[in-house]
Amino acid sequence: MLQEALREIQRGCAEIIDIERVENLLKAYFDEGKAFTVKAGFDPTAPDLHLGHTVLLQKMATFQKYGARVQFLIGDFTAAIGDPSGKSVTRKVLSSQDIEKNIASYTTQAFKILDESKTDIVYNSSWLNSLGTVGMIELASTLTVARMLERDDFSKRYTANTPIAVSEFLYPLLQGYDSVHLKSDIEIGGTDQKFNLLMGRQLQKTYDVKKQQAVLMMPILEGLDGVQKMSKSLNNYIGVTDEANDMYGKILSISDELMWRFYELLSTKTLDEIDTLKAGVSDGLLHPKSVKEELALEITARYHTKELADAAKEEFQKVHSQSQIPTEIEEFSADGDIWIAKALVDCNLEPSTSQARRDIKQGAVKINQEKISDIELQLTKGEYVLQVGKRKFAKLKVN
Amino acid sequence: MLQEALREIQRGCAEIIDIERVENLLKAYFDEGKAFTVKAGFDPTAPDLHLGHTVLLQKMATFQKYGARVQFLIGDFTAAIGDPSGKSVTRKVLSSQDIEKNIASYTTQAFKILDESKTDIVYNSSWLNSLGTVGMIELASTLTVARMLERDDFSKRYTANTPIAVSEFLYPLLQGYDSVHLKSDIEIGGTDQKFNLLMGRQLQKTYDVKKQQAVLMMPILEGLDGVQKMSKSLNNYIGVTDEANDMYGKILSISDELMWRFYELLSTKTLDEIDTLKAGVSDGLLHPKSVKEELALEITARYHTKELADAAKEEFQKVHSQSQIPTEIEEFSADGDIWIAKALVDCNLEPSTSQARRDIKQGAVKINQEKISDIELQLTKGEYVLQVGKRKFAKLKVN
Repeated sequence: MLQEALREIQRGCAEIIDIERVENLLKAYFDEGKAFTVKAGFDPTAPDLHLGHTVLLQKMATFQKYGARVQFLIGDFTAAIGDPSGKSVTRKVLSSQDIEKNIASYTTQAFKILDESKTDIVYNSSWLNSLGTVGMIELASTLTVARMLERDDFSKRYTANTPIAVSEFLYPLLQGYDSVHLKSDIEIGGTDQKFNLLMGRQLQKTYDVKKQQAVLMMPILEGLDGVQKMSKSLNNYIGVTDEANDMYGKILSISDELMWRFYELLSTKTLDEIDTLKAGVSDGLLHPKSVKEELALEITARYHTKELADAAKEEFQKVHSQSQIPTEIEEFSADGDIWIAKALVDCNLEPSTSQARRDIKQGAVKINQEKISDIELQLTKGEYVLQVGKRKFAKLKVN
Repeated sequence: MLQEALREIQRGCAEIIDIERVENLLKAYFDEGKAFTVKAGFDPTAPDLHLGHTVLLQKMATFQKYGARVQFLIGDFTAAIGDPSGKSVTRKVLSSQDIEKNIASYTTQAFKILDESKTDIVYNSSWLNSLGTVGMIELASTLTVARMLERDDFSKRYTANTPIAVSEFLYPLLQGYDSVHLKSDIEIGGTDQKFNLLMGRQLQKTYDVKKQQAVLMMPILEGLDGVQKMSKSLNNYIGVTDEANDMYGKILSISDELMWRFYELLSTKTLDEIDTLKAGVSDGLLHPKSVKEELALEITARYHTKELADAAKEEFQKVHSQSQIPTEIEEFSADGDIWIAKALVDCNLEPSTSQARRDIKQGAVKINQEKISDIELQLTKGEYVLQVGKRKFAKLKVN
């Protein structure tokens, strides 16, 4: 049981700091029923969650299965003041109404994944505001400028003479201080957050928190292209508020490789179940497309309902089959009316007119995406898309 | 009048930023009687003021003569939290009692120089505490890390890998913010404060204060040695709470060069009066020592009373005359008792016994620092310091 829990917790992780701590916490839960805390921070400035954001939530849900109370931290403090960093576009300062609205939208989505009864929603404004000027300065005294400039992005920007506002040095400290205040046992975040996650560990030590948090880093999920990270600005994302049909369709559009990545990071199937699917595909017993459909159904049902997911699958199949015309089709022309069977042969779609007639009878021939059955059909002046089976297409212009 | 004021204000300054602003403020005072504000910050961690600290106070007093209200800023905010900087010795955090005691001692001394009716004592804790976490971060967002690292000491320490706490980047910002809050027209400080003084100007602009403060930088006063800056740790200082006798004596011990520097930076004599003294010395009409005595009297009277200063002068002259024996004196010996006049000739102090007798009669001869009058005196076995006039000495051993 402990081993299985550890395996599921380590699943998909990019890096874990202090796995011993995690193991001890799990052990205390299994042996004594002792709960522990897992913190993850969310920035309420962007109201639109996409699947990339849910990687963390899935991991938190896994932790909840094994005794964790989740500290769902809303970074409303920072959101309220904006992040006046050296970024080319300064982050917009949000009104408290905007923030509340975003948080409501966030948590509604999050509880499709998390167990609400094992989740504490906490707002860092409630303790960071009371730090005050003095507390802020004391916090800033715990770290050196040199150490800050070791952070990858700071170091690059400093070297490239890209401005870094002094305040940007304060944000990692504040994030770390959240862990001090919450006395978190574990914190999870993306690999891009490594510096800040370790800051929590370090500050817990500085501020005499009894034990330092373990840190789990999740990889950044790739977008639909399978290469760049999923992000709204790259338009390669699947939003958790996407319509069921869009969500389903987008998942079916990903590569097989990315499908397995999604299984690892987003599915609630166990590692054993996923291994079974993999074996099925490699043995030829399962078509990758059907495995992908299963994934699409699972995820669509999560954010909508099973019924809507099933309907999305049906709709997809219908639309998909109707829109299977490739964008590049070879073009032919005929001088004057032409018999359909001959046209199919002239356009290299059929080896012979007799084969063409057989295929028409079996319903394997379409003109402009409509099945035909008339083997004597004459094509008159006009443009036609001819199709045999699923993959063979030609355009014919009859003059 | 305006020109004279400008001349007195520029007197001794190491650097002035925005002299036009100063001129306009003075003009508005002379034309319309409009007052303006001059800020200077004092750190209440070190209770012992020395003359080096009073250079600023003298300049503030000059400003008060020409229409300024002085913003006597007590840096109690920083003092209360300590300065957890990368210094080898971390600054001690002071209790509020300590700070109050130091401030009382400070202001008592300061009002020996400043016009109390034209002075506002302000405590920066009163507005810096209410900045809060958010205000502190907003303040930190106004400046870049690169700009901070341009500050001389930061740049040196960063290059030398000497730790700089992130909080140290916040102090200059806080000091600058003081000028925002106070809407100071002018700030004065030491040349070593240039970065922080300019920060006030910059932040006033950022925070939309109507006009930016002019900045006056005063040089760092040299200590008794005339080379290193006056400081307690170098033990080359004159404390404002030194006893009158010590103060007077220390001033008389400085070089003539340093004396003119003290006149420029510490005396309330006008530039014209000082020029007259200089002319007197260079024409041979005045002895430098008497000019030095005048300075010592002025400064001693400022921190004590005229009576105590005069008494100090008298005491000094007495002690000084008693200890006028050079440490290196030529030594002679005589075999058996010897007549004083002959002894003076043998020791090359007199050209002849007749001249010796004349000098003894006129009281110009001393033995062991006591005047003698007996021209027939026989020196018996023993050791004697013989002296003729002020400068001629000899040691004589009579066997």
